[in-house]
Amino acid sequence: MSMPTANSDRLWSTLMEMGAIGGTAGGGCRRLALSEEEGRARILFKHWAEEAGCVVTVDRIGNIFARRGGTDRDAAPVAIGSHLDTVPTGGKFDGAYGVLAGLEVMRRLQDLGVTTQRPIELIAWTNEEGARFSPMTMGSSVFTGDIALDFALSRQDPSGVSVGEALQAIGAAGDVPVGGRRFSAYLETHIEQGPLLKEGGEQIGVVTGSFKARYFVATIKGQAAHVGPTLMEQRHDAMVGAAALILEINRIGRSRGRDGRSNAPYIEVEPNVRGVIPQEVRLSCDVRHPDADEALAMEAELRDACAKVATDYGLSVALDQYFEFGPINCHDDMCALIRETTTSLGFTQRDILTVASHDAVPMMDFCPTGLFFIPSETGISHSETEYSTPAQCSDGASVLLNAVIKLAG
Amino acid sequence: MSMPTANSDRLWSTLMEMGAIGGTAGGGCRRLALSEEEGRARILFKHWAEEAGCVVTVDRIGNIFARRGGTDRDAAPVAIGSHLDTVPTGGKFDGAYGVLAGLEVMRRLQDLGVTTQRPIELIAWTNEEGARFSPMTMGSSVFTGDIALDFALSRQDPSGVSVGEALQAIGAAGDVPVGGRRFSAYLETHIEQGPLLKEGGEQIGVVTGSFKARYFVATIKGQAAHVGPTLMEQRHDAMVGAAALILEINRIGRSRGRDGRSNAPYIEVEPNVRGVIPQEVRLSCDVRHPDADEALAMEAELRDACAKVATDYGLSVALDQYFEFGPINCHDDMCALIRETTTSLGFTQRDILTVASHDAVPMMDFCPTGLFFIPSETGISHSETEYSTPAQCSDGASVLLNAVIKLAG
Repeated sequence: MSMPTANSDRLWSTLMEMGAIGGTAGGGCRRLALSEEEGRARILFKHWAEEAGCVVTVDRIGNIFARRGGTDRDAAPVAIGSHLDTVPTGGKFDGAYGVLAGLEVMRRLQDLGVTTQRPIELIAWTNEEGARFSPMTMGSSVFTGDIALDFALSRQDPSGVSVGEALQAIGAAGDVPVGGRRFSAYLETHIEQGPLLKEGGEQIGVVTGSFKARYFVATIKGQAAHVGPTLMEQRHDAMVGAAALILEINRIGRSRGRDGRSNAPYIEVEPNVRGVIPQEVRLSCDVRHPDADEALAMEAELRDACAKVATDYGLSVALDQYFEFGPINCHDDMCALIRETTTSLGFTQRDILTVASHDAVPMMDFCPTGLFFIPSETGISHSETEYSTPAQCSDGASVLLNAVIKLAG
Repeated sequence: MSMPTANSDRLWSTLMEMGAIGGTAGGGCRRLALSEEEGRARILFKHWAEEAGCVVTVDRIGNIFARRGGTDRDAAPVAIGSHLDTVPTGGKFDGAYGVLAGLEVMRRLQDLGVTTQRPIELIAWTNEEGARFSPMTMGSSVFTGDIALDFALSRQDPSGVSVGEALQAIGAAGDVPVGGRRFSAYLETHIEQGPLLKEGGEQIGVVTGSFKARYFVATIKGQAAHVGPTLMEQRHDAMVGAAALILEINRIGRSRGRDGRSNAPYIEVEPNVRGVIPQEVRLSCDVRHPDADEALAMEAELRDACAKVATDYGLSVALDQYFEFGPINCHDDMCALIRETTTSLGFTQRDILTVASHDAVPMMDFCPTGLFFIPSETGISHSETEYSTPAQCSDGASVLLNAVIKLAG
């Protein structure tokens, strides 16, 4: 029999309807984790999943599981999924594509009247982005046991609302215990967040590994004083120190050419008023490189830069690591499965590294896990301009569909 | 008769009791304009003023007027005053000292049983700092007609609360129309916010003029994108541009030695989350110099720096002036009055420029206005460590008392 493929029109209209929830004037999407908008996205997803014949359950961290039964009720399920939350100025594809490509798999299996041997579970994980609540990949990390449920529930957004409160506020908390069961495999598809597939013209990117990334908070302490009368020579201006550090961070990433990444995207300033020299700045920053040793060398440069800023500007600078990611261990047999499926469907492909984390990353140590990308037309994500074509979206869903069929038997 | 002097112990205990409202663990004061704490400070001040025999009225922007009658009911009053609000991490002296030195004047006149010819009005102006609501010197500027009442009432703090709402919330709005009447003179005393009196050992600083200061918002626009996969060479990172601009601003001030000032103390970042390259930064900044031409030259350098940052980092940078201050025109006869009074009391003095604005600044064009400083032991203000000694505070109140007696007859 010929290989089944995704229904491109159905998948596209589903993506666009989901993208309209929190849709922005600029064509993007603002659907922060556990916001009112994301609550509506959850309701719509559950409705669609039930229409596709799935049984929906929700765990205590808000992860949604849409289960399609198999002929062998005792077999560990094949899991697929991604996330519905976005960054504040995000697009329609990052996260939602992986969930809705999974929904298209469920719908196509229903169209075909196929029952696999293993059950299939489609998962919408809670708070992958970490934009409102830190840390990122929260729902999947609680599921795998990498972070504790109570810790996750107590995390607060900048306005002081906790994850637990936000779950209650939108009715997104379920009663199923988090984790405590096995999957036979986990498979995730995602838009590429960089330009490589677009540059090379390939249809599928098989993720074989990742950059190594370390994330820090730099705390720069000076002394508050009046912005006017205080002599420049007497100042201990934490904002100036932060500025010098931001430029150093940028330099460290750029010095590694196309392989280096470094960022300082989030800043908190005290007191952050017009009349007072800032006494403290907390700057979230990170360094990333495909070569783990080189990433550590970048971190060493960052630590040197902190010491230099402290000396140059009469400040104290502390650098505390709060997160680490990679290098991840992609499963060879899952990579092989994605490659074979892609080839069988007649699509072009390349191997690729992921620079960012995904829900698949905590899953890597939990069960055999595969991750693959479809091209980004604009080469960027976390942006209103992120975009993949209907055909690109459909191709990825077709790979997912056939890989799932192989895994679920 | 010998010249009357302030009651040092009474003034000091009054300053300490007021400073305890919003008092911080670090020995400073957090009493933002129209906050609950400042509301309690207003009630205490009105109570004290009435105890000292004054009639208290409040205008629609919340300026408090404590009036001591004169023998000539039709004479224009002599006004004195300052403000009760502080910056978020302020001290016990900036603002409150001028109000409470004025209260000591009222109390001493009551002790002496003296009735002057002219009425005397002691004023606690609303929102001098501009830390919660911009612009600064709001109450005095509405009084003088420099800004419109409706405009001031509509200004919002960062959480969206307007001045009008905040006035209602703490019951600080009065029913007296703002302005519309004359003063024969206005006199204000304030702690010095720099180290000059301390360095020179003088007891009183007679303010003869000011720095010229221009205040801007620099709006730096780039493009949001994912912090991980986006190649460094493809980025348009508004935070990096802001950092480069902050360092340039700092350099511009430092290049003028002890006469230059430049600041970038307030920043707003969008979206300011860990996963997204910032697409927009709005940076409040200013340049100041005693020589107005040199201040304009600093502004020109700032504009050049904006253009260079835009080119270097692939951004757009707009610089919009939102406020200007100075050079102010101090009244020669008021300066002479302060000098004579200081000499008569046996205190040492020097002329001095103010680098920051004060409520006396909008008053300069409204009526003959004088401003003088007492020393700061630590040389800084807008800090928990700002401090003047009981004797320094008392000396300034004695100068104020005797100058007011001369002005009021």
